[in-house]
Amino acid sequence: SGLVLVKNPHLDLMEEDILYHLDLGTKTHNLPAMFGDIKFVCVGGSPNRMRAFAQFMQRELGLPGAGEDVADICSGSDRYAMYRAGPVLSISHGMGIPSISIMLHELIKLLHHAKCRDVTIIRIGTSGGLGIEAGSVVITDTAVDSSFQPRFEQVVLDDVVVRSTELDKDLAEELLACSRDIADFPTLIGHTMCTYDFYEGQGRLDGALCSFSSEKKLEYLRRAYDAGVRNIEMESTAFAALCGLCGLKGES
Amino acid sequence: SGLVLVKNPHLDLMEEDILYHLDLGTKTHNLPAMFGDIKFVCVGGSPNRMRAFAQFMQRELGLPGAGEDVADICSGSDRYAMYRAGPVLSISHGMGIPSISIMLHELIKLLHHAKCRDVTIIRIGTSGGLGIEAGSVVITDTAVDSSFQPRFEQVVLDDVVVRSTELDKDLAEELLACSRDIADFPTLIGHTMCTYDFYEGQGRLDGALCSFSSEKKLEYLRRAYDAGVRNIEMESTAFAALCGLCGLKGES
Repeated sequence: SGLVLVKNPHLDLMEEDILYHLDLGTKTHNLPAMFGDIKFVCVGGSPNRMRAFAQFMQRELGLPGAGEDVADICSGSDRYAMYRAGPVLSISHGMGIPSISIMLHELIKLLHHAKCRDVTIIRIGTSGGLGIEAGSVVITDTAVDSSFQPRFEQVVLDDVVVRSTELDKDLAEELLACSRDIADFPTLIGHTMCTYDFYEGQGRLDGALCSFSSEKKLEYLRRAYDAGVRNIEMESTAFAALCGLCGLKGES
Repeated sequence: SGLVLVKNPHLDLMEEDILYHLDLGTKTHNLPAMFGDIKFVCVGGSPNRMRAFAQFMQRELGLPGAGEDVADICSGSDRYAMYRAGPVLSISHGMGIPSISIMLHELIKLLHHAKCRDVTIIRIGTSGGLGIEAGSVVITDTAVDSSFQPRFEQVVLDDVVVRSTELDKDLAEELLACSRDIADFPTLIGHTMCTYDFYEGQGRLDGALCSFSSEKKLEYLRRAYDAGVRNIEMESTAFAALCGLCGLKGES
């Protein structure tokens, strides 16, 4: 049917669903009227960048109001920022898995309540490249954890549930084909490694703590490269797992 | 000496230290002049709330400019917001362990470069209470993970390093004593549980996914209460571990 899958039997029993961190709700907002025609959702860490992206999409799509300021749909909350440009929604998710997870839970419920169909979601965040030219765009085929495994370990109460982090391979190829029309950016498909920490987790030598040698760092990053990792960031495994479970066609 | 401890032998070899996510640096800013007299750092998730807290401190301390707007010291970055009111720094950290970790690494280096002494850091974020009156203030004696253990598992490259999450017991007692002068808020000392997820991790029945029954949720929360947990949030174990390792007197 192309609808978003919400896998929570409790949800239908609720009289009202408040999407708290987005400052939206089923009783306070007409979600089908506001969002029913959304076909693409683009997400990234920084609110300013996601505003700029919405303005860029407005110009690219030749929409009325292009060049003017866009309104933050979540302006009543300072947790996330949300903008729309025609069928494209542009949302910030902050930094790290817990932060993107809260946003994705509420976004998925938003798309469900709004009865959206055939939605594609793309994370367009920044990342650190590994053994590739600076400024390259990496299209993720599989998100992997810090042991280079395609899995996301979700703690549910005190159980650890392991979830798959496969992304949509056809969409990845489609995006790569699009990149051929744009000369400015070297673009490639590869694995994306997701970590819980920016400094010690990614082998940075300039954090407040650093308990490893530069040799150990290089040996680790070399193993990551050999395992197919081409960039490192902090959200992709949770993004892939949640989108996959809820039937959203996702890419990163 | 009361100085902040930076445990990274690489740092002294660097010509310049850029605190990227704070939009500050050792070459672009005179950090000792800007921050050398800071004695208290208060942190919380929301940027708006941390601005309001700085304005509140300005009034409480009778500082010149009280009632006026305060300037965001990190205005060049939209990752975090930072305000000061006399000797008090007020900083937002976003949501979740990865987000607060990035901020704390850069804050600890900031206090180190600024040669600050005897700094007390207090997290004043929101949390969900467990078996206590709504609106209560919980002063954390120990931060625990989702298995109620006083530990923080930090992934360093692909090793898991276990760190202690003890907080400053004297400071906790001191804060409790202060609370006795304020009639409006029930205040208690207890354990704070830190999770990686707001919905499935904390037993919420209203996420996009929910794979447990309400009975299982209640049984888990009852076990948490019996283990001494009085509130649940998403940053305390990383906060306690990082502050403890770097010699910052910390409370949450």
